[in-house]
Amino acid sequence: MARRLMFEKPLGMRDTLPFFYNQKSKVREQLKSSILSYGYSFMDTPFLEYHETVGKVSATKEQRLFKLLDQQGHTLVLRPDMTAPIARVAASQLKDAEYPLRLAYDGPVFRAQQAEGGKPAQFEQVGTELIGDHSSYGDAEVIALLAESLKQTGLNDFVITIGHIGYVKAFFKDLLGEDEETKGILLEHLYRKNYVGFREQVKMLTLAEEKKNALLELLNLRGGSEVFSASKSLARNQICMQAVNELKQLHKLLSNYGVEEHVRFDFNLISHMNYYTGILFEGYAPNLGALLCNGGRYDTLLPSFQLNASATGFAVHLERLVEALDDQENGDQRVSVIVDDDTHASGIEKAKELRQEGFQVLLQHVDQIPDLEEFKKQLKESVDFTSKGGRS
Amino acid sequence: MARRLMFEKPLGMRDTLPFFYNQKSKVREQLKSSILSYGYSFMDTPFLEYHETVGKVSATKEQRLFKLLDQQGHTLVLRPDMTAPIARVAASQLKDAEYPLRLAYDGPVFRAQQAEGGKPAQFEQVGTELIGDHSSYGDAEVIALLAESLKQTGLNDFVITIGHIGYVKAFFKDLLGEDEETKGILLEHLYRKNYVGFREQVKMLTLAEEKKNALLELLNLRGGSEVFSASKSLARNQICMQAVNELKQLHKLLSNYGVEEHVRFDFNLISHMNYYTGILFEGYAPNLGALLCNGGRYDTLLPSFQLNASATGFAVHLERLVEALDDQENGDQRVSVIVDDDTHASGIEKAKELRQEGFQVLLQHVDQIPDLEEFKKQLKESVDFTSKGGRS
Repeated sequence: MARRLMFEKPLGMRDTLPFFYNQKSKVREQLKSSILSYGYSFMDTPFLEYHETVGKVSATKEQRLFKLLDQQGHTLVLRPDMTAPIARVAASQLKDAEYPLRLAYDGPVFRAQQAEGGKPAQFEQVGTELIGDHSSYGDAEVIALLAESLKQTGLNDFVITIGHIGYVKAFFKDLLGEDEETKGILLEHLYRKNYVGFREQVKMLTLAEEKKNALLELLNLRGGSEVFSASKSLARNQICMQAVNELKQLHKLLSNYGVEEHVRFDFNLISHMNYYTGILFEGYAPNLGALLCNGGRYDTLLPSFQLNASATGFAVHLERLVEALDDQENGDQRVSVIVDDDTHASGIEKAKELRQEGFQVLLQHVDQIPDLEEFKKQLKESVDFTSKGGRS
Repeated sequence: MARRLMFEKPLGMRDTLPFFYNQKSKVREQLKSSILSYGYSFMDTPFLEYHETVGKVSATKEQRLFKLLDQQGHTLVLRPDMTAPIARVAASQLKDAEYPLRLAYDGPVFRAQQAEGGKPAQFEQVGTELIGDHSSYGDAEVIALLAESLKQTGLNDFVITIGHIGYVKAFFKDLLGEDEETKGILLEHLYRKNYVGFREQVKMLTLAEEKKNALLELLNLRGGSEVFSASKSLARNQICMQAVNELKQLHKLLSNYGVEEHVRFDFNLISHMNYYTGILFEGYAPNLGALLCNGGRYDTLLPSFQLNASATGFAVHLERLVEALDDQENGDQRVSVIVDDDTHASGIEKAKELRQEGFQVLLQHVDQIPDLEEFKKQLKESVDFTSKGGRS
């Protein structure tokens, strides 16, 4: 084998060694247990989908899709998210299920990276989809479940910021009319949370001073429920009013769930998933410099699979949650029983006993251990069961 | 979206709906729990690897690899098995770990299919690798762990057939010398378990009658430990003798583990994985028309990553094990609490209580249910918590 690449992995691909694997397993099970307790049913879809179906409707940019040709000449993609494949299943095999439908998933998704040293090209998402519940009750359930799932993993310090894509779009239309280019630039700045760029762009516009001030004022619409009245004052059109009322209702329902302490509102929140159509949200942990989880309501994805239904859901970026938790209490708990030719049979019995007591027990013939002292050091405890040993 | 492909999946790709997902989860956890109890550490590797590294050493035929080009122009493959990637990690990041090293894995692998209606192109393997234990004790541990893991899932009726690739190869060399073509054809027949083809091929050979009879006699070397003496009589060369002695020793050690009732020996067993170099085995369940699990010892894979170590391991085909178990006791256990505007807050409290009692509880606003009777039917129980309802 060529030495050059021998131990290398493709760009953005990572190995998961036992310590991190165990941390991930623990957190994954905690999340899944919370989601199951809310009556969601887990399902899975294949890793490869047709570009024609799932590839095109997923909100991932073309150059971030891993694409390949199958032997029949179709373009396939490695799934870039789970929402589009689940929409496909909901609209086909599950189209006669009783609504509202509560589905959940857990698995890797793939997004090609352009440069070294950056983000992973494969990461694991644990998430939910509530399909066919068009109400704020549905939105509230999804956000409350997200908050409670995070708390169950032991994460206490996190914030879920909630916005409404309908508000921003109607507000921009009011002030900028059909100027799609300017609206696009401003949305892009908000999406990148580049508020300096947003301000500079607004100042350069040939627009009445009053309108410019209104656009700049949008950036202040962030905080607790006290921002609702300012949001109504700023944008006095029907669609914006309705968006604020939805968020007010949502806030009340989240109080019923007792998770309001983790919730903030942000009327200039734009998510990268361009299929969101109503409320949307992002979750952050202060010790983590990246998005922990996100979600929202999407009303156009299912119709693109000919299913007339609205849906709302969230996805947690599992590896990032594990990093945010930074749980180091996961030392090697294994014990060993070390045997030789004469004690193999009795060593097996000893190991069986210890396993029944709940230990993870490694049975090892002494002749195959290159360095007995070092071998024992990696373990919590070792039982010398060789003929010469003490059989402690 | 083009209607033609809208709900289609690529060849050999399948969705996993909730019922099968739950069955799989249960069996996966049982297997993993057994493997952990033997002191194995789980790890994972990425789904994409360089063709140059993992693609070339894996024993999968080129046309069954899913290949793609990355943006740097390298050929990548979707991992066709887990043994080669784990060898890569063992030889790099884990090269200073204490030996013997016990690693385990669980995840999907990918093998492209040529035709409709056949085998899945993605399936899940749960498996182990014992690295650096060159002894029969290592082989015995791996086979005993496989048998005990299967038993823990509730599978009682299964057979693990054990062979030795060294025996077959030395036996053929004795009788056929350097005639690689004939040896290749005969090995291929054995691999395909095409014993009729094997017999016909032998009859056509221009070979002494005595040698032909010996070749045909090989097919009878199957059964319990009583086949050892016949195996020794048939092939009186050093390598064959040593292989039989290894299997005798293995048989004794498996008796120590108490799993000998599930074990058979087969001196014409050839596995499809051409990196096996010593003992090899395949597991079958009588109600399943396909290989359930397999494994063996490989001594050349790790050296191809410049690591001088022998290894032995097994892999269980998870979906097939679930099919073999055919456990239908997995009905929907969810209960629902149905609320309206006035009872949302008290419904949340009720749901919380039920969740604390261990129930999976779906809280649902009544206005979002298209058909209340059908909705209730899918669940184990429903609590009507609406203002009009009985709040039972």
